[in-house]
Amino acid sequence: MGRTHSNAYKRVGDFFPELNYRPVLKAVCSRSPEKVKAFAEQWGYESTETDWKVLIARDDIDAIDICAPNDFHAEIAIAAAAKGKMILCEKPLSRTLAEGQRMVDAIEKSGVKNTVWYNYRRVPAVTLAKQIIDSGKLGKIFHYRANFLQDWTISPELPQGGEGLWRLDLEAAGSGVTGDLLAHCIDTAMWLNGSIKDVSAMTETFIKERVHQASGKIQKVGIDDACIFHCHFENGSLGLFESTRYARGHKALYTFEINGEHASIRWDLHDLNRLEYFDHKDDSIVRGWRSILVTDGDQPYMKKWWVPGLIIGYEHTFVHQAADFLKSLETGEPCAPTFKDALETQKVCEAVIDSAKSRSWKDTGAKSI
Amino acid sequence: MGRTHSNAYKRVGDFFPELNYRPVLKAVCSRSPEKVKAFAEQWGYESTETDWKVLIARDDIDAIDICAPNDFHAEIAIAAAAKGKMILCEKPLSRTLAEGQRMVDAIEKSGVKNTVWYNYRRVPAVTLAKQIIDSGKLGKIFHYRANFLQDWTISPELPQGGEGLWRLDLEAAGSGVTGDLLAHCIDTAMWLNGSIKDVSAMTETFIKERVHQASGKIQKVGIDDACIFHCHFENGSLGLFESTRYARGHKALYTFEINGEHASIRWDLHDLNRLEYFDHKDDSIVRGWRSILVTDGDQPYMKKWWVPGLIIGYEHTFVHQAADFLKSLETGEPCAPTFKDALETQKVCEAVIDSAKSRSWKDTGAKSI
Amino acid sequence: MGRTHSNAYKRVGDFFPELNYRPVLKAVCSRSPEKVKAFAEQWGYESTETDWKVLIARDDIDAIDICAPNDFHAEIAIAAAAKGKMILCEKPLSRTLAEGQRMVDAIEKSGVKNTVWYNYRRVPAVTLAKQIIDSGKLGKIFHYRANFLQDWTISPELPQGGEGLWRLDLEAAGSGVTGDLLAHCIDTAMWLNGSIKDVSAMTETFIKERVHQASGKIQKVGIDDACIFHCHFENGSLGLFESTRYARGHKALYTFEINGEHASIRWDLHDLNRLEYFDHKDDSIVRGWRSILVTDGDQPYMKKWWVPGLIIGYEHTFVHQAADFLKSLETGEPCAPTFKDALETQKVCEAVIDSAKSRSWKDTGAKSI
Amino acid sequence: MGRTHSNAYKRVGDFFPELNYRPVLKAVCSRSPEKVKAFAEQWGYESTETDWKVLIARDDIDAIDICAPNDFHAEIAIAAAAKGKMILCEKPLSRTLAEGQRMVDAIEKSGVKNTVWYNYRRVPAVTLAKQIIDSGKLGKIFHYRANFLQDWTISPELPQGGEGLWRLDLEAAGSGVTGDLLAHCIDTAMWLNGSIKDVSAMTETFIKERVHQASGKIQKVGIDDACIFHCHFENGSLGLFESTRYARGHKALYTFEINGEHASIRWDLHDLNRLEYFDHKDDSIVRGWRSILVTDGDQPYMKKWWVPGLIIGYEHTFVHQAADFLKSLETGEPCAPTFKDALETQKVCEAVIDSAKSRSWKDTGAKSI
Repeated sequence: MGRTHSNAYKRVGDFFPELNYRPVLKAVCSRSPEKVKAFAEQWGYESTETDWKVLIARDDIDAIDICAPNDFHAEIAIAAAAKGKMILCEKPLSRTLAEGQRMVDAIEKSGVKNTVWYNYRRVPAVTLAKQIIDSGKLGKIFHYRANFLQDWTISPELPQGGEGLWRLDLEAAGSGVTGDLLAHCIDTAMWLNGSIKDVSAMTETFIKERVHQASGKIQKVGIDDACIFHCHFENGSLGLFESTRYARGHKALYTFEINGEHASIRWDLHDLNRLEYFDHKDDSIVRGWRSILVTDGDQPYMKKWWVPGLIIGYEHTFVHQAADFLKSLETGEPCAPTFKDALETQKVCEAVIDSAKSRSWKDTGAKSI
Repeated sequence: MGRTHSNAYKRVGDFFPELNYRPVLKAVCSRSPEKVKAFAEQWGYESTETDWKVLIARDDIDAIDICAPNDFHAEIAIAAAAKGKMILCEKPLSRTLAEGQRMVDAIEKSGVKNTVWYNYRRVPAVTLAKQIIDSGKLGKIFHYRANFLQDWTISPELPQGGEGLWRLDLEAAGSGVTGDLLAHCIDTAMWLNGSIKDVSAMTETFIKERVHQASGKIQKVGIDDACIFHCHFENGSLGLFESTRYARGHKALYTFEINGEHASIRWDLHDLNRLEYFDHKDDSIVRGWRSILVTDGDQPYMKKWWVPGLIIGYEHTFVHQAADFLKSLETGEPCAPTFKDALETQKVCEAVIDSAKSRSWKDTGAKSI
Repeated sequence: MGRTHSNAYKRVGDFFPELNYRPVLKAVCSRSPEKVKAFAEQWGYESTETDWKVLIARDDIDAIDICAPNDFHAEIAIAAAAKGKMILCEKPLSRTLAEGQRMVDAIEKSGVKNTVWYNYRRVPAVTLAKQIIDSGKLGKIFHYRANFLQDWTISPELPQGGEGLWRLDLEAAGSGVTGDLLAHCIDTAMWLNGSIKDVSAMTETFIKERVHQASGKIQKVGIDDACIFHCHFENGSLGLFESTRYARGHKALYTFEINGEHASIRWDLHDLNRLEYFDHKDDSIVRGWRSILVTDGDQPYMKKWWVPGLIIGYEHTFVHQAADFLKSLETGEPCAPTFKDALETQKVCEAVIDSAKSRSWKDTGAKSI
Repeated sequence: MGRTHSNAYKRVGDFFPELNYRPVLKAVCSRSPEKVKAFAEQWGYESTETDWKVLIARDDIDAIDICAPNDFHAEIAIAAAAKGKMILCEKPLSRTLAEGQRMVDAIEKSGVKNTVWYNYRRVPAVTLAKQIIDSGKLGKIFHYRANFLQDWTISPELPQGGEGLWRLDLEAAGSGVTGDLLAHCIDTAMWLNGSIKDVSAMTETFIKERVHQASGKIQKVGIDDACIFHCHFENGSLGLFESTRYARGHKALYTFEINGEHASIRWDLHDLNRLEYFDHKDDSIVRGWRSILVTDGDQPYMKKWWVPGLIIGYEHTFVHQAADFLKSLETGEPCAPTFKDALETQKVCEAVIDSAKSRSWKDTGAKSI
């Protein structure tokens, strides 16, 4: 994620020149002195640190961007808030709801600017979906379904933990697909369709034991390889969510579909520039799902990029969020999703894990975001 | 359904001339004398009846095909079995598990030939999926997901019950989408992927009250408008099923996808001639989902129809089942799914409804089919 | 084609019961006594003939349906017209324009009812395209493009001529893909978009020599394996047509697209139930190609078949044409395309072949159909 | 194009850190002092010029990147070559073949490094297509077809010439869609499938007169709004090309398909991360077009970007070409397509325009690139 965020900071001024603020790459921090040096050189950071506490203590640092594994989020964020730094934090906010709550408390106490990188909200087609829904075109909502399917952990040879693999380690990650993938789906869903009231979930760990990089020994796998849940939204619609890293043939198939009384919408990360839209109000003989190529200047964010028909990619979503964060410094408005918003997603994640463990429905207690 | 079945009987000899048996359209039965006359004339039935008991009593009738609403299935089937008639029954087998059990008991006692019209098994692409799975190409199965989405009952003006609308009447139908649509998905799933062990479900009735055709009054709606469940298959894979009549933009979107260790398969009724297939064993740089147009002579049933590239439609699945039933008369083998097979689907449906009501997991007790 | 036509005659009464006329399968004719007997038995023909002249001489025969290879079309049609029989002729009308002209002369002289089986006009999605165009939704037309791609003659081992292979024999077929495939594209194009004024073409024969079934010897191949042409329509739009039997991966990929000032349409035989439609008048942010699943009762021919969402196949187009022909007997209107209409398509085909040979533009002399 | 190129220079070091050379944004040149200042500030150029001759005269400038309208290409390139500057030139190379020849002569005389921005070669999926073809998987090639469809000039209100519209002005552009769009298709085609031998073309100007921005008067439109041609490749395959700015519903639909004896490939700019591939050697029952999502590290350029499943966009192709150009400075190899390569594309373009004018076939004289 260090690369995606660094790229965002470097591109945002080129494509959003109207912004009053521009990020300066003052310092990058990582535990390995060699790696952090190489990274700083490649991306043009002015300095490096190997201890995040030192970084936070520096007076020339205004904002802290947390790309460390999940088990560092809370500690860094709370310390940074105490120092009055702006904080941008990778998703999920935290490993547990309790951890997340402490982070939100710290942020609120210090009053610093903050945001969480649920970047898929800022795919232009997804932002367009939000606009369409808010315009009332869909009418009453009946169904919301989303999934996030991958296939990269099918091999039992894959170790848990270690370089690039902390997402398989329960201690570092907090959970498996629930925090890594479903958290994205839940954030988008609650943004588009309101709060999730209660959930009924199941999880599965297909490969029960893997070598752990830290110990070098075969250990029990603690994370969820797959998670499925259905739920009720506050607005009365039914939700259905699934995520797995065992769906052979899918790399990052994040899709959602929302069915309303008058219209429906669906989207797919693999073809992220397209939004599919069905409008029952079209003349019946020519009614059909529309495949909207979201590349026109009147569609969200797209006048910043190329001419119609020319697509953008994954990393642009981070540039958009960086731009919106910089804009929020001008306007004083929060840059959603804030830590507080992200905490609502944590509530649903926690209820999902609890529901799967207890084989029962759980209320989430989540509020609208 | 009378039209689809009649068409199957009339076409089967033209396209399966090698069969020793050919159906003869001896009689059609329906309560309205005018309608049954008109239907018989249109389709070429030799005679008509308005009382099914009279029909069953006739000696010149060898087989009874039950296309009546669900609330007639048990009574007719049990009576026909007692008279030693072969029985072909529309799905779902019955409104309840208990009803279905009585039907199976009757069939087993009389030993008559029988089959249930879960016609989607005989879409060539679906039969091909079965062949691919049975060949072991997928390896261990991790996920099975299916849905059946429609949008024809969104209007609150639609009455429940009455001409063409008995599917909205709990008494006639037994359930809503669970028996009507999910039963198809469950039959296919258990045929392709083995038995379903336990389920956790939710159902919803979006429109709470509708005019009932029988009483002319506004009455509470008893059926499930939507049903979602997740489950464990006996083979350890996770299942996810959804059905609704409130998915704006979908007419009969029955899809399934199955993810295995080595390969995955997906299918969609709207494009029923296609099967999508992903094989991880393909060279990595040219690996991708294959869109297989199932129209070649070496693919199931297709040498009976046209040259490669020319597609078939919905009603052909009934012709295929009619052919297989006639073939079963020659071989003495059962024509799956039999009443006994269909009862296993009823077990899952019943567990689904129970689970939704009790908001808890339910074991199905179903066996492999 | 005998099977497709027989099927059409047998189904038309079942699905179009309102028609006053119903076909009776009086006789089928073919040179092989064994084959014609078997065919008659399978399909239920009352009698058989092995000499078409005898068939035509029979008083109990009202209509002659010509499914013989192209080199028989003219002789049979002219003889049948002289006997006052109605004539339904497979496409293309004839091998050459001169032959076609003699056929039209004979028909006009005798005044018999006639039609040519350009069946793809009666794919519901194609008929819907015609309705949309005629409604003016497209505005001024700029472009028409069509292709018909197959891959079944790539192997050099395939003989020319003989059982099922007369389409590779210049003497029997008159031409290769031009008459067999492009004729379909041209018929549809002139029906949808008006007459074709002039053409510039190229043809290719990739496999220069093949064993001829008749002689058993290797002989020069006379047909065109591939044909490409561009053209001007009378309405000022540009046309582009391509056909080949050497497009690996395509079985019967007949597609067309038409681009107008306000809207565009495209269609593909492999997914024949879908029509794609783009309407520039849609709100700009939700504008996109619509995928119309043409299965609703208010779309052409579809109220005759199943409920929305359930598709039909290739052979239904012949049922539709049979129904329209029978209707034309009631109304006295011609059943398009008539021999006269099909002659206009022959004019374009002839100009295409001439243009390819002479490497120059050719006027077609075709009139609107 | 200034933005795309500037972006490429700024990103190339971040994503290709192994390169020995890094671009420095020394100066940007444009006629308007205000605009060039604003652009320099936005993108971080060190200085500005308003006279390209002054820029070329500067000793601190090593490379000239020509993004000016086509009528400036020759003059700037020849002057820059004379000063020994490296030259990167936007496509098409020139307005006419003669102009292009003079540019190539100048380059060859001076021996400076050069490349032409036919950027679509470096879409990873297109580069992958090249690899697949070169591996011999397709076998003998029968067909190549490509089109480039847009719809942005349908309105007669659009002026010719002026700000952002020089592509509509014959004097500035040299031609319409032929040089602007078909040149891309021809470059890719000759790279993938060898040289084009002869062509037969037609062009059309749908809107005959438009207001000219320079004169403010209605003037005859000189450019081709649409161009279609078919051709023979040196390898015996048939080519078919079409481009237009009047294809309602298409923004930048550049597609190509190539059919070989054993396999076929197709690609579409709107979904640029996908390559479709059909391999006849697959088992017949599971044979189908594969949709390859080209995002894996073993596919061209993709290990530089994100994890599998996450797509890139249009501007990345320029980053790739910038990287390859910088690499060519290390290796001393040319960075294709060079001016010399691009001249072969000009030969085909010129033959196309000549053929359309003379309504006759034209030899291109082009050599392989």
